[in-house]
Amino acid sequence: MYAFVLGLCLVQFAVSGQPKPKIQSPEILPKHGVRFQLKAPLAHSVKIKGSWMKENAPAVEMIKQDSIWSYQLSDLPSDFYRYNFYVDGIEILDPLNTYVERAGSRHESIFIAPGKQGDLYVPQDVPHGTLSAMWYSSGILGHARRLNIYTPPSYFENPNRKYPVLYLLHGAGGDENAWISRGPVVPILDNLIAAGRAKEMIVVVTNGYPKKWSAPNAGPANSDPSISETASMANGKFESSLVQEVIPFVEKRFRVLADRKHRAIAGFSMGGLQTQHISNAHPELFDYIAVMSMGLMNDPRIEVTDEARHRQQISALIKTAPKFYWIGTGKEDFLFDSIVKLRQRYDELGLKYEYRETEGGHTWSNWSLYLSELAPRFFQ
Amino acid sequence: MYAFVLGLCLVQFAVSGQPKPKIQSPEILPKHGVRFQLKAPLAHSVKIKGSWMKENAPAVEMIKQDSIWSYQLSDLPSDFYRYNFYVDGIEILDPLNTYVERAGSRHESIFIAPGKQGDLYVPQDVPHGTLSAMWYSSGILGHARRLNIYTPPSYFENPNRKYPVLYLLHGAGGDENAWISRGPVVPILDNLIAAGRAKEMIVVVTNGYPKKWSAPNAGPANSDPSISETASMANGKFESSLVQEVIPFVEKRFRVLADRKHRAIAGFSMGGLQTQHISNAHPELFDYIAVMSMGLMNDPRIEVTDEARHRQQISALIKTAPKFYWIGTGKEDFLFDSIVKLRQRYDELGLKYEYRETEGGHTWSNWSLYLSELAPRFFQ
Repeated sequence: MYAFVLGLCLVQFAVSGQPKPKIQSPEILPKHGVRFQLKAPLAHSVKIKGSWMKENAPAVEMIKQDSIWSYQLSDLPSDFYRYNFYVDGIEILDPLNTYVERAGSRHESIFIAPGKQGDLYVPQDVPHGTLSAMWYSSGILGHARRLNIYTPPSYFENPNRKYPVLYLLHGAGGDENAWISRGPVVPILDNLIAAGRAKEMIVVVTNGYPKKWSAPNAGPANSDPSISETASMANGKFESSLVQEVIPFVEKRFRVLADRKHRAIAGFSMGGLQTQHISNAHPELFDYIAVMSMGLMNDPRIEVTDEARHRQQISALIKTAPKFYWIGTGKEDFLFDSIVKLRQRYDELGLKYEYRETEGGHTWSNWSLYLSELAPRFFQ
Repeated sequence: MYAFVLGLCLVQFAVSGQPKPKIQSPEILPKHGVRFQLKAPLAHSVKIKGSWMKENAPAVEMIKQDSIWSYQLSDLPSDFYRYNFYVDGIEILDPLNTYVERAGSRHESIFIAPGKQGDLYVPQDVPHGTLSAMWYSSGILGHARRLNIYTPPSYFENPNRKYPVLYLLHGAGGDENAWISRGPVVPILDNLIAAGRAKEMIVVVTNGYPKKWSAPNAGPANSDPSISETASMANGKFESSLVQEVIPFVEKRFRVLADRKHRAIAGFSMGGLQTQHISNAHPELFDYIAVMSMGLMNDPRIEVTDEARHRQQISALIKTAPKFYWIGTGKEDFLFDSIVKLRQRYDELGLKYEYRETEGGHTWSNWSLYLSELAPRFFQ
């Protein structure tokens, strides 16, 4: 059976990528350090760019020694990071890193720097919820739509228990998988629930683009991320579909506490705009509302907020006294001014909200942090 | 709101990867052709290797013109393909291709060449099943385990209907996501069911390694694909867990026709060995058995089949007259000889089976084909 032994060796080779890697990348070092390494003997230049850098910062040179290019970070805060190498200008994954995530149509290597925050993003040995990808038929959008539903660890153990529901919306360039792969929703919820810090809840992660059916690969070809939908992202169809189709679908299929006290909605960027649209038009639906990295919209390509209507809607919302209205943004978010204006409007009209201002910009680092801070506050 | 417009442009840029790609890759051409292109002005050499080539064939040179390296295929059979580029010896994804799949710890660009077979692997506008990733607790394995369960399109529409179940096992280097991402189970089942060619069925996709908890990223760190488990792949623990833990878990949680007539098991390579172990030891369980790319095991590192016991088990299996016993292999499979020996044993003892011999080797191209041919046969 030499052939089989040989075959197994081939399988082993295919599995590990390298027979016995002498170098490791990324390598977590003491004192919050990380080292990246790439073997590239023929390259003229190898650079690295990662999410620990400012958004518009250029890639930085790695240092070559004996065919190995390396780069080292120290004092890196515990968080979920993405990075890639640039070999003579060509963007590549770190070939020694198994962990990869899609961001739109690109792919990036990822790692989690251990510590209090990062450990929330890592699957741990705790009771796990179930993640289900399912489809609903949308008359409003005119096609089928995929959504992801997280049901908490006890859901299948307690066949009579009903649960509150968080509706979680993504930003431009994302899809129903973005909060799952990058959030990352499942470990955050599993870990917070296991620690007794969050209530068991169902989390519904939709696709927020009106025309798309699903993430790429999961649905028909028109789900390609290169199809831009800037113009339609705020046309109201997704918002109508969420209220008239998604919520009834979820409340029919799952054991749900189907009232305002047990419904939350949160979203960032495009999803923060949609969160406002939905909670403004339907003050009866959600007792928990969280708007991340988005304020008053004033872009003719997307939407210019109708001031009179907005004032009217917010006044109506105030009368229903939502239990929890939250606004969060990074100090360097390119939408910061819009959020200042939204807060001024709320202050003027008297809508009570909680405001959270963090370091950094319009980043997943902030949205993951916000979800980890908000989940313990919902339904309490 | 200049900042927001700028921001949107950045988002657009991030989404599309390239502002306006002048080149496309892969590009499907008439007459079953495909062209691959990569812009790499500084590279000395760019090669391509893909799953249309023989397994051990070396990567082939691409041709450079005006900074663009290209390579063209013609007369490519309709199928699911993987490939990567090698830029000065470094393996990279095709940066213009959104579609990427993990194979063990490596990542590869993928595409589907359209046609009768490939179209089965593409999500189409048909009713879709639900895919749920859930966890069960395994006393036999000593830890929690993740599995994927496909429930067919009508499952949630007909709350009283019960369904047959296919248990589907992966090979060495794989995990519970392999049949999902590469199979690809969901479109194959959705498309065959929609065409009226397969019965609606539940498909349970387990993780076949005794020590691993899950695919990487979905479970605790010991799920890293670089951890080899060659020695334990046939120690019987997975097989016991499937019979004593997975089947009861599935039959408790889902509406299942819980008898032999409505149970099928299929697996390839390592999973083909486990399929034999399980159906040999438990002839009472499955009326449909499919062994892909695996015969009589004779490797001291894994298992040497105990001949007396095997004869006894097969004789017992014959008495239960399974409705459907299927063996399939590629002509160039490195395990071909072991399959010849298995068939000789069955012929000698009188176990009736159906034999399918295809082109090619120990490849996903064959396993996807086999699933697409077997699903219409199960439970008929």
